Amino acid sequence: MASGHTTAASVRGPRFAGAGRRGALLLALLLAAAAALLPVAEPSCPRDNSVVKDINKMHQSNYGIGGFSHITVAGALAHGMKEVEVWLQTISAGQRTPIHRHSCEVFVVLKGRGTLLLGSTSLPYLGTPQEIPVFQNSTFTVPINDPHQVWNSDEHEDLQVLVIISRPPVKIFLYEDWSMPHTAAKLKFPFVWDEDCLDAPKDEL
Amino acid sequence: MASGHTTAASVRGPRFAGAGRRGALLLALLLAAAAALLPVAEPSCPRDNSVVKDINKMHQSNYGIGGFSHITVAGALAHGMKEVEVWLQTISAGQRTPIHRHSCEVFVVLKGRGTLLLGSTSLPYLGTPQEIPVFQNSTFTVPINDPHQVWNSDEHEDLQVLVIISRPPVKIFLYEDWSMPHTAAKLKFPFVWDEDCLDAPKDEL
Repeated sequence: MASGHTTAASVRGPRFAGAGRRGALLLALLLAAAAALLPVAEPSCPRDNSVVKDINKMHQSNYGIGGFSHITVAGALAHGMKEVEVWLQTISAGQRTPIHRHSCEVFVVLKGRGTLLLGSTSLPYLGTPQEIPVFQNSTFTVPINDPHQVWNSDEHEDLQVLVIISRPPVKIFLYEDWSMPHTAAKLKFPFVWDEDCLDAPKDEL
Repeated sequence: MASGHTTAASVRGPRFAGAGRRGALLLALLLAAAAALLPVAEPSCPRDNSVVKDINKMHQSNYGIGGFSHITVAGALAHGMKEVEVWLQTISAGQRTPIHRHSCEVFVVLKGRGTLLLGSTSLPYLGTPQEIPVFQNSTFTVPINDPHQVWNSDEHEDLQVLVIISRPPVKIFLYEDWSMPHTAAKLKFPFVWDEDCLDAPKDEL
């Protein structure tokens, strides 16, 4: 039997290589066990074609936006949706989404309270926005391309909304402030949560 | 002063008409008060163009379906939605929706648990459906025109779902049972909750 047999080469090798084939098997098992214990980096755009998905286990991130959390519940790029997209978003007390416009959007407020700020579309710039209170178990609709911002104007509680948008994937135009002309709004496409799902437009240089 | 003055005509009138102008005023006030106390019949398709709506105050009905409740949170006919429609539906323990197919649909389960039954689209008839468990905080998607049924298979708790559909107003094809061929499914349009919102197709006779 070869068990316990060592060669000159193996002696010069790393310590655990000296155990021969049985040692190699043990090493492989140890490495496999270590790999199983290591945290696995979750892809930020996990493609998942299962019919039913547990929202608690779906990828959640703030995408670099402070006091914010986004889950793509049903997405064009992540789940092959062609007609609608559904997001679950949580905005911390005092935080705001960027001022932006895009395709049609319906909100359902699941938790908390806040303020919807709606800019003018009849002026060439946003102008002073309307401030409309929103609250748990309310719904509101932002018509196609109406510039808006959702502000968690509460001092304590999170604002959690389910967002339904049409014409996915979303093409978002961002405004820096309420004095900005509509024509100066910048298209951000793919948007931050779609960046890992869709190849970014090629740099033309 | 004319107070207390009665005419021959007023004496022949109903008892409270005998009080003259002051009596007529009192009558009008009494009728107004009674009208304010009477329950006002709520229209089943209330048109409401306000930006923010309280879902608790929106029209809710079972539309003749036992153990069922429907609210059109954002609708094509009731609220002018052109691209998506959002419903809040509650199914009592043990109850099922009809077997049906229509445009793309995303569900978010807000409360309870149940079973999604999905029929075959590769056979000319529905066949034995797949039975897929759904639960609170899960999401599921029924692709365009896939026949399905949502069953609250729990024995006690309500199943509450938010339903998002594309291409509103919804055109629903109904099946009587799982052995029915797809070609025999009957179009019900406008669907029950849209009947009061849209004029039914004219009878050609």
